[in-house]
Amino acid sequence: MATFSITEHPHRRYNALTGEWLLVSPHRAKRPWQGQQEAPDVEQRPAHDASCYLCPGNVRAGGVVNPAYEGTFVFDNDFAALTPDAPTGTVNVGGLLRAEAESGVGRVICFSPRHDLTLPEMEVAAIRGVVDVWAAQFRELGSLPNINYVQIFENKGQVMGCSNPHPHGQIWAQRTVPGEPAKESRQQLAHFQEYGRSLLTDYLALELQDQQRLVLENAHWVALVPYWAVWPFETLVLPRRHVQDITQLSEEERDAFAAILQQLTIRYDNLFRVSLPYSAGLHQRPTDGQEHPEWHLHMHFFPPLLRSATVRKFMVGYEMLGNAQRDITPESAAARLRELPGVHYKQAPS
Amino acid sequence: MATFSITEHPHRRYNALTGEWLLVSPHRAKRPWQGQQEAPDVEQRPAHDASCYLCPGNVRAGGVVNPAYEGTFVFDNDFAALTPDAPTGTVNVGGLLRAEAESGVGRVICFSPRHDLTLPEMEVAAIRGVVDVWAAQFRELGSLPNINYVQIFENKGQVMGCSNPHPHGQIWAQRTVPGEPAKESRQQLAHFQEYGRSLLTDYLALELQDQQRLVLENAHWVALVPYWAVWPFETLVLPRRHVQDITQLSEEERDAFAAILQQLTIRYDNLFRVSLPYSAGLHQRPTDGQEHPEWHLHMHFFPPLLRSATVRKFMVGYEMLGNAQRDITPESAAARLRELPGVHYKQAPS
Ligand SMILES: O=P(O)(O)O[C@H]1O[C@H](CO)[C@@H](O)[C@H](O)[C@H]1O
Ligand SMILES: O=P(O)(O)O[C@H]1O[C@H](CO)[C@@H](O)[C@H](O)[C@H]1O
Repeated sequence: MATFSITEHPHRRYNALTGEWLLVSPHRAKRPWQGQQEAPDVEQRPAHDASCYLCPGNVRAGGVVNPAYEGTFVFDNDFAALTPDAPTGTVNVGGLLRAEAESGVGRVICFSPRHDLTLPEMEVAAIRGVVDVWAAQFRELGSLPNINYVQIFENKGQVMGCSNPHPHGQIWAQRTVPGEPAKESRQQLAHFQEYGRSLLTDYLALELQDQQRLVLENAHWVALVPYWAVWPFETLVLPRRHVQDITQLSEEERDAFAAILQQLTIRYDNLFRVSLPYSAGLHQRPTDGQEHPEWHLHMHFFPPLLRSATVRKFMVGYEMLGNAQRDITPESAAARLRELPGVHYKQAPS
Repeated sequence: MATFSITEHPHRRYNALTGEWLLVSPHRAKRPWQGQQEAPDVEQRPAHDASCYLCPGNVRAGGVVNPAYEGTFVFDNDFAALTPDAPTGTVNVGGLLRAEAESGVGRVICFSPRHDLTLPEMEVAAIRGVVDVWAAQFRELGSLPNINYVQIFENKGQVMGCSNPHPHGQIWAQRTVPGEPAKESRQQLAHFQEYGRSLLTDYLALELQDQQRLVLENAHWVALVPYWAVWPFETLVLPRRHVQDITQLSEEERDAFAAILQQLTIRYDNLFRVSLPYSAGLHQRPTDGQEHPEWHLHMHFFPPLLRSATVRKFMVGYEMLGNAQRDITPESAAARLRELPGVHYKQAPS
C-alpha cells in the first residue's frame, strides 16, 4: 500500500487557530463540472458614477451628501445590522430558548474616491491610507465603553454579496466577541499559556521552514496559504512581529502591510485574469480592556473561486451538515499563487 | 426606553444543538438590494433526458450503464471525496501542522426515475421509498467496520452547487465524526446526562407550547423554524419520539416522515413560486458501535433564498470572519411558511 501523503490522499487537517478539522480530498478536483457558472466582473466602470451612493459628492440613503473626499471616507452604515442604543434584555426558557440583546456600530469605509479601482489597482501609498483608517477606526471604536470587539472586513464582488463595486469595506463593532474570534482567542490563549509565545509566531516559524505554503514575503509580513485553508485559494497575512492589533504597527510595518496587500491582491486578480471576488478581514484582540498578550494580529482572505473565473467552490450539503471540505491541496494552491506575475494583468503589456 | 423584544431588536440567540451563538438583526431586511440576482430554476425538463447520467438506462462516467430502475437507485459516487482504501497515517509538526488520513464511502441516491420531478412533486408513497433507502443505507454503511458516521444529504438547485437537476441526494460515510454532528453530540450528551431526556424532546415540548415557530405537524413529526435558525427559511424536522436513527422508525413513522417531507417542500416551492433551492440532510447517531441514547434523529433544511426567487442571503464577510447572522426573525419566517397553501403551485389551478 502507498505511503500516506497529504498531497495525494484524502485526509483531515487540524486548524490550530480555531481547533476545528477540515476534510481534504486532493483527487476530487478532477471531476467534471456541469453546474452553476458565475458571471465574472468584467464591466468597465467610470472613475465617477453619478448613481453610486459611495462616490464623492453623491447623495446617500436618507439624503446625506458625501463630501468631496480625496483618500478614504468613513461613515455610519445607513443600514447597520447593529445599533448603539438597542434595548437590553435576555430571554431564557428552560436553557433551550436563549437570547440576549446585542448593541454595536456599523460603518462603511470607502477605500478611494475612484469608482473604477479596487485594492490591487491602487498605489501602495493609497492602500497605506486604508491601513491608517483601519487603525484609527480600531482605536476609536475599540475605546467605546460597550464595544468589546471590532470586526473590519471587505466583501468584494457580487458573488460575495457585495452590492456596490465602489471599493469599500465595512466595520461591525459590538458588545460581545463573535464566534470566530472567540475560537481563535481560546486556541491562542492555550498556546500562549503553554509556550509563552504566540501561536502564530510558532506557526509562522514552521511555515518559513517548510516553504511549501508561502506565497509572498517582505521585511515585516508573510502571506501564505494556511495548512488548514478551507477555501481553494484562501490566504493568511501575518506580521512577523507579535502584535495584538493594528494600532501597534510601526510606520514601516504599515507601509509593508500596504505593500503585501497590493502584491497579494494583484496575484489574486492574475490567477484567473478577472477581478477576484473574496471576503477578507482583520482578526485582532478583543477591545474589552484586557491586554490579550496571546493575540497575534492577522488578516484572512477567503476567495470562493475554484477552477476558473466562473466555477466556484460550493460550501453546501456535506459542508453545512458535516464538515468544511476542500478539493485541491493548500500546497498546490500556494504553488499556483507564487508563480503568478507581480504586475496586474490590466497593467501588463500582453 | 423600549422593552427588549426578540422580534424587533438586534440580539444574539443561542443554538442549543451546537452550543454556538447567532446574531439576529430583525430591522435589517428593510435595506434595499442592488446586488447579485440568482437565476431561478424555471426550466421545463423532460421526464427522461438522454444526456443525464442519472436517468435510467443512461451511461455514467467510466462507461457504467444505469439499470432501468423504477423507484430509487443507489450507486457508488464516480467522483467520491472519500475512498475506502486510502492509505492511513498521521502528520504532527509541533502540534501546529496536524493531519490524519481519512477513509470512507461516497454514494449517490436517485430519488426517482423521472428527470422532471423533485421531492415536493413526488407522491408520498414514492417519498416513502426514499425514506426506506435512507434507512437501508444507514444500516448497511453504518455497520461497516471503519465507518463511524453516515451523512445523508441533498443539494437541490444550482445555487446549492447541484450540478444535475435529476432528483438525487448523496451519502458521505466516514471513519471520523464530522464537526457539525460532533458539536451536536456534545450538546445532546450534556443535556441527556443532566435531565435523562433528549435535548430535542425537551426543546420540542417548548416549541409545541410556544407555537410561534411551528410550520407543520402530523401524528409523528413536527417541522419548525428553530429558535436559532441561521438561514432565512431554515427548518428542523423532528420525530416526536426520541429515536437515535432512521432504522428505528416504525412503518407508520416512516409514512408520516414521507408525508411531512412532501408537505414541507411543497410550502418551500410555494414561498417564491419557484423550485426552492436548499441543502438538507439527516443528523443521526454516530455508527461507532455505541448506543448514543442522547442522540435524537432530526433533519435540517437550509434554503439560501431571502427575499424573492432571485435574492439570496449571503454568508460572507462578517459571517465568515465573525459570526452567523440573519436579517428576518425565525418567528416571521415560520409565520410566512405556515400561511402557504398545501398544494404545489404547479398543480394548483391559478
Ligand atoms: O458532489 P457534487 O454534487 O459534485 O458537489 C456538490 O456537493 C458537494 C457536497 O456537499 C460539495 O462538496 C461540492 O462543492 C458541491 O458542488
Ligand atoms: O452589508 P451589505 O454589503 O449590504 O451586505 C453584505 O455583507 C453583510 C456582512 O457580511 C452580509 O450580512 C450580507 O448578507 C451581504 O449581502
